[in-house]
Order: sequence, then structure tokens, then C-alpha cells
Amino acid sequence: MQLLKEAIREKGNVLSNDVLKVDHFLNHQVDTNLMIAIGLEFAKRFENEKITKVLTIESSGIAPSLMAANKLDVPLIFARKKKSLTMNNNVFVSQVYSFTKRETNDITVSKDFLQENDRVLIIDDFLANGQAAKGLIDIVKQAKAEVAGFGIVIEKSFQDGREQLIDAGYRVESLARIHSLENGQVHFVDELAKTN
Amino acid sequence: MQLLKEAIREKGNVLSNDVLKVDHFLNHQVDTNLMIAIGLEFAKRFENEKITKVLTIESSGIAPSLMAANKLDVPLIFARKKKSLTMNNNVFVSQVYSFTKRETNDITVSKDFLQENDRVLIIDDFLANGQAAKGLIDIVKQAKAEVAGFGIVIEKSFQDGREQLIDAGYRVESLARIHSLENGQVHFVDELAKTN
Repeated sequence: MQLLKEAIREKGNVLSNDVLKVDHFLNHQVDTNLMIAIGLEFAKRFENEKITKVLTIESSGIAPSLMAANKLDVPLIFARKKKSLTMNNNVFVSQVYSFTKRETNDITVSKDFLQENDRVLIIDDFLANGQAAKGLIDIVKQAKAEVAGFGIVIEKSFQDGREQLIDAGYRVESLARIHSLENGQVHFVDELAKTN
Repeated sequence: MQLLKEAIREKGNVLSNDVLKVDHFLNHQVDTNLMIAIGLEFAKRFENEKITKVLTIESSGIAPSLMAANKLDVPLIFARKKKSLTMNNNVFVSQVYSFTKRETNDITVSKDFLQENDRVLIIDDFLANGQAAKGLIDIVKQAKAEVAGFGIVIEKSFQDGREQLIDAGYRVESLARIHSLENGQVHFVDELAKTN
């Protein structure tokens, strides 16, 4: 997705060979035009998949998911990272380790919002090592629902998250696939020919 | 806002005289049509206020803010509730006590995203005792920017948050104002005549 790749090039900050900071347009300050375009792109890619729910994880997944769920005309659910006191025990729970934050969080989804016949599109801002994806799959499985695929804004293709999901049989649609962040430069998978 | 009040009546759960659970359409499962309508309503109410930034707080503020910022054609910023390891020290910090979660969180906004001449529309899902609002005002003041007003989805008018903001001279636009939650019933401020 060209618009997204331009945003990454122009506004992303490469902090290390592993870390791309996108707080200028995605996960702190939000470029709402870009988020709408991303949401519509996900909806287009999954329009024939009979999606019944879009599932994401707070907070950075919400903005790129909103228009996807709206266009697909299904509810959006965001998994909570910590059990709140007003959330009763009627929840699916899984664990997600964040390498960025160096901590394990419970993620929870109320049993009210996922049912046995649901076909769930999982959307997230990043796919790196697949930890969040695994937690979300676990929750969908607990509900005996089906994962219809993954819509990922930015994939760190040099980590093994995508491979794990593909090996497990899931469809993965990543709007920007990053081959490497070496030497402070963003190289996309589909631009390798140009960058070599 | 009629659509919102209907959602509150039909899908809200009154857990006590103080607590209204709206996880069926606002802060866990999200009704995206309603969120778009809410965002556009905020934009309309503040269209003449020369807004330059919309500021909200993760996570539940993001969905109702997205279309507000988009329609006003300004960036959306969401304050983070916890300092992340990839966020450097170039941040404004304030403290917010949550009565619901019974904990104090730091909220942070990068200094990159608020400037001295900004006119900031603050949007949040709830206004109750005004704790989050105070923290957000503090951050806008640290940036020497100006609070242009508050867009609130649901106001608990029986708590003193609104009064505090009005007394401090701020414009407060609440799309649903709840007079009371007594006996498991939602009574709105502007429907008192009918409900008495």
C-alpha cells in the first residue's frame, strides 16, 4: 500500500535494527486519512471471506480497524490488555508477551462478543514475532469461532510472525512488509530489487 | 444525541447507581456507525472553534475521536496511559486517578505533537469526576497550548466533572447527559420531565 509506505519512509523513525517508531501517524499521533484508507483496504481484501467480526487489540489496533469493520458491516471488538474491575468473569483470557514493553499482559474478550459461528478478521498494527496474534487466535479458538485471516498494518518480515501464521494455515494480508531496518534505513520486501 | 441515547438505553448495563457499562457498543465491542456519527457530531459542534488538534486518551477515546479529527482535518493524538520503553523522555506527563480501576496512571503525550499555538479539542468517552479531563488540561497547559473545549460521549451529570470544567471556563459538549442511574434505570438530563 503506497500511501502507507510513504508515511513509513517520511515519518517513521528507525530506532534500531528491530524497532521502527511510527508514533507520528499510527500509534500516538494518528493520521486519520491514512487510517481510513487502511481500514477500507482491509475490508476490500477480505470482502469475500464472510467475516462476521473484526477483532483487534487495544490501543493501536483500534484506529486502523474502525473503517474495516464499518465497511464489512460487522462489529469491531478490541481485546483489553488488562482485566478491568467492571469486567466480570465472563471472559476469554490469553497471555501476550510484549518484547517492546518486556512484560506479559493478559488479554481478555468478553464471552458476549464472540460466538461459535463467527468468522473473525484479526487486525493489528504490527506483526513481528506473532505473540499478539497467537493470543488473539487462542481467544477465537476458546470461543470455538474461526480465524478468517489477519490484516496487518506493518509486518516486520525479518521476524518469524508471518511464517508462523502462514505455516498454521492462516491468510495474512500485510499492507507494508519490512525486509530490514538496518543502518537506519527502511527496506520493504517488494522493493528489494531497487534497494540492492 | 438520539442515536446514542437509544444505544445507552438498549445496550447499556447499569451495574450500580454510579456505574454504567457500555461495552456492547463503546469500549469493548464497538458500534462503528455510532462512533462515526459521534465523531461527526463533535466536528460539527466545534467547527467554528479553529481547532488544530484533537486530543483523547487511550483506549476508549480513540473510536469516537477518529472521525471528529478527520472531519476537522486535524491530527488526532491519543495520550498514552503508561510510558512505553520506545517513548523517549521528550514527553509531557500528568497523573490521572481512575475511580473505576482504583489506580493512578501516568498519562503522557510526546512534545512533538502539541505546540504553543495549538487549539485543542479534548474528546473522551466519559466525564464523571473530571480526573481524566484534569490530566489532559494539565498536558495542554504544559505545552502552552489552549483547550478549545471538551467533547464528551457520556456525561454522568450526577458527578461534578462537568461543573468543574464549566467553572474553569471551558466549553463542554456532552452527547448524552445522565441525570441518574438509580434503581437500574438510566435517566437523561433532558428527559427529566418525562421520567418524573
